[in-house]
Amino acid sequence: MQDLKKAPIGIFDSGIGGLTVAKAVIDALPNEDIIYFGDTARVPYGIKSEETVRAYALQITNFLLKRGVKMILIACNTVSASAKEEIIQAAGEVPVLDVITAGTNNAVSLPDHKNIGVIGTMGTVNSRAYVEAIHAHDPTINVQQEACPLLVPLAEEGWIENEVAQKTLHYYLDAFDDSDIQSLILGCTHYPLFKDVIPKILKNGNIEIIDSAESIAESAKTKLAELDLLNTSGGDFQCFVSDRPQRFHELAERFLGRRLNGVEVVALD
Amino acid sequence: MQDLKKAPIGIFDSGIGGLTVAKAVIDALPNEDIIYFGDTARVPYGIKSEETVRAYALQITNFLLKRGVKMILIACNTVSASAKEEIIQAAGEVPVLDVITAGTNNAVSLPDHKNIGVIGTMGTVNSRAYVEAIHAHDPTINVQQEACPLLVPLAEEGWIENEVAQKTLHYYLDAFDDSDIQSLILGCTHYPLFKDVIPKILKNGNIEIIDSAESIAESAKTKLAELDLLNTSGGDFQCFVSDRPQRFHELAERFLGRRLNGVEVVALD
Repeated sequence: MQDLKKAPIGIFDSGIGGLTVAKAVIDALPNEDIIYFGDTARVPYGIKSEETVRAYALQITNFLLKRGVKMILIACNTVSASAKEEIIQAAGEVPVLDVITAGTNNAVSLPDHKNIGVIGTMGTVNSRAYVEAIHAHDPTINVQQEACPLLVPLAEEGWIENEVAQKTLHYYLDAFDDSDIQSLILGCTHYPLFKDVIPKILKNGNIEIIDSAESIAESAKTKLAELDLLNTSGGDFQCFVSDRPQRFHELAERFLGRRLNGVEVVALD
Repeated sequence: MQDLKKAPIGIFDSGIGGLTVAKAVIDALPNEDIIYFGDTARVPYGIKSEETVRAYALQITNFLLKRGVKMILIACNTVSASAKEEIIQAAGEVPVLDVITAGTNNAVSLPDHKNIGVIGTMGTVNSRAYVEAIHAHDPTINVQQEACPLLVPLAEEGWIENEVAQKTLHYYLDAFDDSDIQSLILGCTHYPLFKDVIPKILKNGNIEIIDSAESIAESAKTKLAELDLLNTSGGDFQCFVSDRPQRFHELAERFLGRRLNGVEVVALD
């Protein structure tokens, strides 16, 4: 039998945003091999029907399973909200973790949490997926959601700390000025890029920032340890995309926080 | 024989941006019936391969031809840049106009023009379609292009004149401060929304703003008059989309500048 410990972890997203998850996993688990799939030809998923998102997510899941992954991380909030159950079923014995569950578990585990803020894309906010996940733990927790549609294009433009980024963050985050949120979940895989700026924008400096990329990386580490599947001799990173958009490399390296070698374009449909 | 004068004008775009073209056509030709198609399920085209863009554009062309349009307006810069010839061929005797040709013709027709600015998405700028179209008229004209990736999401967020929009416009347009451009082509169908703000941002207040939506509407009017195909008794507007994204109605009405009734979702593939 092949040593399952040495099998790669599969991570996927509708595009490049999930590379922040890959970065967090590399940081938390530097000895794991990772296969990343970004569906750059069909991004964005947030505006597509649930049926279409499920079909795409299952194609990617099968791609990862064929490559023998030992775990699948859904690094896409839209897929986490609408296709998690189907992916779990398709994956069989391969464990599946998702950013919404990971971020939520992290937030609700903080002591005496009664007010949680969530920022995300319009699609994620409207899906109420974080609200439902938090209320599944404790229906008395107040959840305040704010959609921040411009943060994705800002992140892709590389405008993280300039005046435009700061003004934009103020427009969105000032909505939390008069609320008593104790933590703020970054409910979009692009948002970890703003992690250092957001605390400077929030009026209340004590708000805990929940980075769902870090949360899922920690969950993955715990789960692999539980299953005795931690690798001690890997560390490869393989990146697959369904199309190579303009400026892909520059963008991908910004999200991944390191050099990216050998991206392969594969067609799924 | 059916009266071709009463046939509708077909207008299409990858999404809702082309509704600024529809608006300009309604303003210039209020007695024409219009069929608009926005490929909202597959937007954005700018990141897709030319082959894919051509295939999608031909599907939409066939959709419009089946509905008996007397003219097709390509209200999408990406399609204008990469699929115009194929659409002209598919359309046979039905005349086809496109935003790039219309905006370019408008700019180069201005007297003593030697320096032209172009703003557009990353895809349009990298395609150099405006540069080539301008140089086909006069290779001695200097063309300065600036990509303005954030203007599309700003327009969709409805941030047109607020501080974020103004700062963003400054970031992009200050590049023209030290150049001698006499006109600036708005090379993206979203940009007419910023038409009133842009002159306030530009250091040189005498720069002529070339709105390619208005340019193509004027070209359509001229062409229909030439062909004796002007309608005097129409005025209907029909809108078809391939998917109904969130906030579609609000967005579409902002771009169209009027109320929108009866949007129909149709699948092309």
